[in-house]
Amino acid sequence: MSDIDTASVNGKAPSPRTRVRRIAERGHYDRDKLYAILDAAYLCHVAFADEHGVHCIPTACWREGDHLYIHGSNGSRMLRLAAEGAQVCVTITHLDGLVLARSAFHHSMNYRSAMIYGAFEVVAADRKAAALDAFLDHIARGRAHEVRAGDRNELAATTVLRLPLDEAAAKIRTGGPKDDEADLGRAVWAGVLPLALTPLAPEPDGTPPGDAAPDYVTAWARRAGR
Amino acid sequence: MSDIDTASVNGKAPSPRTRVRRIAERGHYDRDKLYAILDAAYLCHVAFADEHGVHCIPTACWREGDHLYIHGSNGSRMLRLAAEGAQVCVTITHLDGLVLARSAFHHSMNYRSAMIYGAFEVVAADRKAAALDAFLDHIARGRAHEVRAGDRNELAATTVLRLPLDEAAAKIRTGGPKDDEADLGRAVWAGVLPLALTPLAPEPDGTPPGDAAPDYVTAWARRAGR
Repeated sequence: MSDIDTASVNGKAPSPRTRVRRIAERGHYDRDKLYAILDAAYLCHVAFADEHGVHCIPTACWREGDHLYIHGSNGSRMLRLAAEGAQVCVTITHLDGLVLARSAFHHSMNYRSAMIYGAFEVVAADRKAAALDAFLDHIARGRAHEVRAGDRNELAATTVLRLPLDEAAAKIRTGGPKDDEADLGRAVWAGVLPLALTPLAPEPDGTPPGDAAPDYVTAWARRAGR
Repeated sequence: MSDIDTASVNGKAPSPRTRVRRIAERGHYDRDKLYAILDAAYLCHVAFADEHGVHCIPTACWREGDHLYIHGSNGSRMLRLAAEGAQVCVTITHLDGLVLARSAFHHSMNYRSAMIYGAFEVVAADRKAAALDAFLDHIARGRAHEVRAGDRNELAATTVLRLPLDEAAAKIRTGGPKDDEADLGRAVWAGVLPLALTPLAPEPDGTPPGDAAPDYVTAWARRAGR
């Protein structure tokens, strides 16, 4: 298949480099699936190249509209390069389970992943505080209005970047093993061992002032107690 | 600090590109910490460059001795390039929690990450079956001897690659928020919201033959039931 052909069984890839090639039926190009994968993520892996070669750096991320945001210290190599418009590939992967087939060959994993190609844009100084508020609200809704806001020096020391989601693709595998017909009678356990990134009990830093934990902490504790 | 200076507070980085630059005290260069991070992982992100630019692809991984292994179809772009000796950066990240500080600026995440630089080596045909057995045993100990082994065609269609761990570094953050002294009295909840990749109840594919699930499935179910 030519690299120019971006058609797929699940819609059209936005560019040749976003077309899912390996097992094309797992590729998805619609916004809903992409947004769901990004919004479930706390971190992404950013790949970029400099004069030392290729790097792959994990960093926190959040989505607003049709952009994925990252931030960090002005001193970060990655942020400096990205701010200069370097081409990047940003990948987010949620591992949902181990797929145990009846033959060694058909073992697999269930996952939801997203890849975004492009170049980051620098978020302007007067938009930085609002973008960082959105990040805090992604982590813990309402928290941006509870904590001490960034002061002038803290904001000046922070770079916020955003990557347009124009050139993005999702890849998803769900369900049980796809065994060969001839193996279905084998006396071996087959199925999925599911995995999920799960909240554990909150760990307060010393005695919290006042007596009420915010909603997002009590909700976290509830989910941890399941 | 010069790029040539690979010294760090936690030992010596094996090369300039593996020296942790941002928050150097989180960098670790000893084998035990590196192995623990790799052995807890089911997948890694592989960054590499080709004529279309930089890519970042998630794939299953396992460690044997002083190598990280990956595998896949001979048809995979990534595996073909990696097999040709392309320089890569492989990153593994475990997210352990959200760190909620009293100021917006000091929010952070707890994590254990590892980065490995280098070039993959092709595992020879007569070593492939043993390497893939080790992969299955990483996923589910003992399973390699229960399932139908790969036949000649399946093994021939599979590329197995390994990356030496010579040029690797770990980066780890643990513990609560590091707030400014002046913020400690603020009336805001601070602490860690921990996260862990957690087993959920096994999902058998139809009625398993026989009546005994293997040990790794019953152990998984037990961990899921906590």
